[in-house]
Amino acid sequence: MAIDAFLAKVKDKSAKIGIFGLGYVGIPLAHTIHEAGFPVLGVDIDGQRVAELNAGRSPIKHIPSQVVQGMVDERFEATEDFSRTAECDALLICVPTPLNKYREPDLGAVESTMQAMSPYFREGQLLALESTTWPGTTDEVLKPYVEERGLTIGENFFLCYSPEREDPGNPSFNTQTIPKVIGGDTLACRAAGEAVYGSFIDRIVAVSSTRAAEMVKLVENIHRSVNIGLVNELKKVAHAMDLDIFEVIDAAATKPFGFTAYYPGPGIGGHCIPIDPFYLTWKAREFGLHTRFIELAGEINASMPQYVVDRTVAALNQRGKALSGAKVLCLGIAYKRDVDDMRESPSVFVMEILRDWGADVAYHDTNVPVFPKMREHHFELSSVPLTADSLASYDAVLLLTDHNDVDYDMVRKHAALVIDSRGRLRAAQQADVAKNQATDNIVVA
Amino acid sequence: MAIDAFLAKVKDKSAKIGIFGLGYVGIPLAHTIHEAGFPVLGVDIDGQRVAELNAGRSPIKHIPSQVVQGMVDERFEATEDFSRTAECDALLICVPTPLNKYREPDLGAVESTMQAMSPYFREGQLLALESTTWPGTTDEVLKPYVEERGLTIGENFFLCYSPEREDPGNPSFNTQTIPKVIGGDTLACRAAGEAVYGSFIDRIVAVSSTRAAEMVKLVENIHRSVNIGLVNELKKVAHAMDLDIFEVIDAAATKPFGFTAYYPGPGIGGHCIPIDPFYLTWKAREFGLHTRFIELAGEINASMPQYVVDRTVAALNQRGKALSGAKVLCLGIAYKRDVDDMRESPSVFVMEILRDWGADVAYHDTNVPVFPKMREHHFELSSVPLTADSLASYDAVLLLTDHNDVDYDMVRKHAALVIDSRGRLRAAQQADVAKNQATDNIVVA
Repeated sequence: MAIDAFLAKVKDKSAKIGIFGLGYVGIPLAHTIHEAGFPVLGVDIDGQRVAELNAGRSPIKHIPSQVVQGMVDERFEATEDFSRTAECDALLICVPTPLNKYREPDLGAVESTMQAMSPYFREGQLLALESTTWPGTTDEVLKPYVEERGLTIGENFFLCYSPEREDPGNPSFNTQTIPKVIGGDTLACRAAGEAVYGSFIDRIVAVSSTRAAEMVKLVENIHRSVNIGLVNELKKVAHAMDLDIFEVIDAAATKPFGFTAYYPGPGIGGHCIPIDPFYLTWKAREFGLHTRFIELAGEINASMPQYVVDRTVAALNQRGKALSGAKVLCLGIAYKRDVDDMRESPSVFVMEILRDWGADVAYHDTNVPVFPKMREHHFELSSVPLTADSLASYDAVLLLTDHNDVDYDMVRKHAALVIDSRGRLRAAQQADVAKNQATDNIVVA
Repeated sequence: MAIDAFLAKVKDKSAKIGIFGLGYVGIPLAHTIHEAGFPVLGVDIDGQRVAELNAGRSPIKHIPSQVVQGMVDERFEATEDFSRTAECDALLICVPTPLNKYREPDLGAVESTMQAMSPYFREGQLLALESTTWPGTTDEVLKPYVEERGLTIGENFFLCYSPEREDPGNPSFNTQTIPKVIGGDTLACRAAGEAVYGSFIDRIVAVSSTRAAEMVKLVENIHRSVNIGLVNELKKVAHAMDLDIFEVIDAAATKPFGFTAYYPGPGIGGHCIPIDPFYLTWKAREFGLHTRFIELAGEINASMPQYVVDRTVAALNQRGKALSGAKVLCLGIAYKRDVDDMRESPSVFVMEILRDWGADVAYHDTNVPVFPKMREHHFELSSVPLTADSLASYDAVLLLTDHNDVDYDMVRKHAALVIDSRGRLRAAQQADVAKNQATDNIVVA
């Protein structure tokens, strides 16, 4: 039987694993599989990315180039050639699933990958989608490509969905130690998927269908989006009541059950939280349902960049200054702490509003030395140095992402005005209050 | 100084502690303080409750009568006489703070307690409110009563807010081991509060104001209400997509960061989660703000009893039966597992809808042998025995609260139809599917 042959190849690690899409998910995945001893073929449409990897250079901050070089030395190759799909025993798809400008799912990358690879499907292969998507995608979108090739899913071809759970910058967990959820189109499909992923991931969590596995990933990110949306709304309420939301959340977090702390910020970023929930919203419409928590969280989180700017305008106004013409430094522009990832970063929205209002905008972020090319955003800026003198030269410093490599004590001492959207300076501020020193240069926003 | 004398009395445990309101919060609190060696005076307007306690009988399931008897034997007494306020060094208020029928805060019990006790305020006392309430209550409502008596807060009288965090039925934590948040009207007030509570609670969490402490408690319960509202909405979406939300949440819960599992149910109950969030909603209006997550969670959670009934109607209809005239057993009617507390229990709303639709309603709950007198609800019912025969005699069994003393295997085997609102039978159902046995008598709702 095809399944037995497949399992044998996985067991002796002769199975070749193809990774389709070499980005924030595909590269760490390729690395983990390679480390487990399998031959790995990386496939991407981006020739520059392919050449870079084959030359032993890493395009991702937290994967060092020497790791990529070690992979290239044996059992790893990157290619633009989708006909090499036929060489692979397992085909793992890790391409982006963004939203279009109407917040509808854009499965363009999944579809074009399927179109490019499916002519080379053969008996005995496993196909697994890792990209986040709406429940039913594997069944309704991927399956027809396989069946069109005359293959029989569950008998001579295996189809799974297994969502990626990468968390760049997380020091406690990596691809191998994060449990992996798998749903199969049939029980044999799931067994094939469990065998492959179980070879390099510590814990496999099998669920009853590909749809269930697709829903799991959405629920994880919906949970985050809604909880962040909630604390962002509470931040606005707390501010009106002259309360510090960060103090309140820290105290609530001392409850040893029934509470998990989420912290507000200038909005949400990254490729997951601002996007994934709307995949469920879109699919739910087919069933006449409205996902109200998702919509509310999206709306409130999207309003936060403007809120941070509003607080800046108010604080400058108190000092007799307009935002127009003011020198403003944005501190931290990557979407979260200690990463270089700018995707959907709320800092960019803050910077755009500041620019629209006529501010003279600069930024500091050692993770992002030069403002990158982005599809929707354009700034001709590089990270400025952070010194006592440079800090003092700005009318306002907006703390947007609290990277750990910044000297916040220096920021607090030398900035004329800090708009702290992360609560990072709160502890220092409290210490000043206790010492009866003035810290009226810090505004929580 | 008054504060030094006060601290000395606390230190040598000669300070008498008055507990105002002897219910789910006041009785465990009195017990914990008594255990620490202080003399305790319990004060309540309910003469029956006072007599019961003085006779050594406990009105609360998880506090045994022998504990109350042990208290009465030395250093504890209950009274209806508010003039004895004067005897106490610390005055801790634990009265209910419900909503009126327009979902507005009802501080009637707090106000009447203040009216009854304040004539007996004297120098050197600490007054602490534990009841959940809107930010500003201690400052705006309690403070005037104290000042009217000519006392100077922070100098010869101390005013705090310290929210109760009782969790009846929680086997891991009790009054002593749950960290206690305290905000004081002044630093001296907070020091007095920390001294008292720190004498019998392991960890004190001091915050900057009474308002901050009031907000902490609300944020804790808003977090729960919103997270339960979210999974209740997701349950409806999952059902439309033919997915089992309990399976999805269990799989999502294997993510070791960024996700906390909350489970859906037939609605929310108890004295906190359905009520407390609206205290913030009400206060926020004063600032022109609308707490949208709270309102949405309230609406969705309140819709769940009807949803459970709708699912029951659909399942009966599939069997050619109407709900009208059907025999329906509600399994578990207390508001949560393994408690006897019926306050705001969603089961009662389910029972009322069933009755309105013409069903013949019975219930089983060993924690609630007789349906209690409730202000808004009336049923002349007692808990029926649960046997194979009795189960088989109902057209539908609605699993509403999954107490641990029920034999769910028997339920699954002998009930013609189970509407499982807690996902309790899911594991058994999956085992049946694996064994290829039919389990079409279970509907997740």
